Amino acid sequence: MTRYRLTLEYDGEHFSGWQVQPERRTLQRALEKAAAAIFQRDIRVFAAGRTDAGVHALGQVACLDIDKDMPPEKLLLALNAHTPEDLSVVHVDRVPETFDPRRHSAGKLYTYTILNRPAKPTLDLGRVWHVPKHLDVETMRRAAGHLVGEHDFSSFRASDCQAAHPVRYLYSLKVQRDGERIAIRVFATAFLKHMVRNLVGVLVDVGRGRLAPEDVPAILQARDRRKASQTAPASGLCLESVFFDDRPPPEDLARCVPVSKRKPRGGFEDSDR
Amino acid sequence: MTRYRLTLEYDGEHFSGWQVQPERRTLQRALEKAAAAIFQRDIRVFAAGRTDAGVHALGQVACLDIDKDMPPEKLLLALNAHTPEDLSVVHVDRVPETFDPRRHSAGKLYTYTILNRPAKPTLDLGRVWHVPKHLDVETMRRAAGHLVGEHDFSSFRASDCQAAHPVRYLYSLKVQRDGERIAIRVFATAFLKHMVRNLVGVLVDVGRGRLAPEDVPAILQARDRRKASQTAPASGLCLESVFFDDRPPPEDLARCVPVSKRKPRGGFEDSDR
Repeated sequence: MTRYRLTLEYDGEHFSGWQVQPERRTLQRALEKAAAAIFQRDIRVFAAGRTDAGVHALGQVACLDIDKDMPPEKLLLALNAHTPEDLSVVHVDRVPETFDPRRHSAGKLYTYTILNRPAKPTLDLGRVWHVPKHLDVETMRRAAGHLVGEHDFSSFRASDCQAAHPVRYLYSLKVQRDGERIAIRVFATAFLKHMVRNLVGVLVDVGRGRLAPEDVPAILQARDRRKASQTAPASGLCLESVFFDDRPPPEDLARCVPVSKRKPRGGFEDSDR
Repeated sequence: MTRYRLTLEYDGEHFSGWQVQPERRTLQRALEKAAAAIFQRDIRVFAAGRTDAGVHALGQVACLDIDKDMPPEKLLLALNAHTPEDLSVVHVDRVPETFDPRRHSAGKLYTYTILNRPAKPTLDLGRVWHVPKHLDVETMRRAAGHLVGEHDFSSFRASDCQAAHPVRYLYSLKVQRDGERIAIRVFATAFLKHMVRNLVGVLVDVGRGRLAPEDVPAILQARDRRKASQTAPASGLCLESVFFDDRPPPEDLARCVPVSKRKPRGGFEDSDR
């Protein structure tokens, strides 16, 4: 048996998220169907974490086991011949049989993109959140400063989140403007359900002046979902990369991880998106 | 009467190009319909140049005349409320009544994007040309060097091109790789029909070794469409910007324009794409 690691790119717009659900078009199902078509048997595909309906990926990671050895480049082409046009396997490599993309993930980077201009989007429709009124990136950055570090993120967690505990360590949360586009990059080991989109909701409310950066500590302390802002739409969210020991984060992100967090790594029993 | 200049962004995938044609969904028609809905009369919209079916734009420019004065921001919102979701008016300003976006254009910048990797595209499907085999950007650059300057571009001109003469001045033709993406940026005052896509066709054949950079002068000299390569697909092409005296090209492009070409400007009677 050989375990393969797949790096996946997808346009999440027309998928009901990652995980298999009856009667739904999901990413896991699309991949398992492609694998079944190639190998003529049921093959399970397991990912580094789920993504929700409408969320995109440039670097989701998933694994599958095959009972014969196949060159990775050949497996890539075979899978892509059987996946729909909004799902692409961009890289394949062999990993040890003990490799678990969820447990061994050393961090995930999400990017949330806002189109901040009066005119509606066209070429990036479905891939951004369109916010017509001008956002103040400077105050958004100050708000982000209050969110970095270890916190109880109950105020930023979907009501149906099934994670065992609400404490997460946010290594980095950067807000960057490039003309009409604002990119919010979030780096952490694991996330609660809807956590990134709920963080973005608060940052945007700060950017438009409905909240002050100084309101953020109280929102965190309340541990109450109703104290934070509305969930930002899924369309702007993209799982950029999943990092592992053999595929470490770039230098600027690695520096954000506190020394105490750098070595021992355990399983993260969370819903992770 | 007030003349307004519109800067337009569009996803060209589902449009039959710029120009009005009976029974076809075109950009000019979509804008004229939007203007008619607002002002309850027929209004003609005239562009800096046509774009073909499937070609995108981030900065196409078009004008229209209105018999009452309206704040530009208001006209922008009104038009965007009536255009389809793949066409957006991103900027509006007032211009003199004598302003002609085609005749007064001081140059146009097109970008052609190639996705150069084995895996098929997802998030930029319909916006790139997918070339799975590795392209050698260095030889493509050498080929591009033979194309810059004033040439008879008959070998790069669609057979039904209606331009009066086939000589054009190419100010700049740059090939840049950014990871899996190759961007080819072409800057000139005017273009023949399919000229950019035919240039890209030859550059890609050079990049994959079917042609040598040294073959390019002979292709130009032949003045025969059959001597050049196939036309690159429309999906990769985007009209990035149109420049005017009051909206000049950035410094790096402006430097490409020879001194002799910098002042006097006439009409360009060509099909211009």
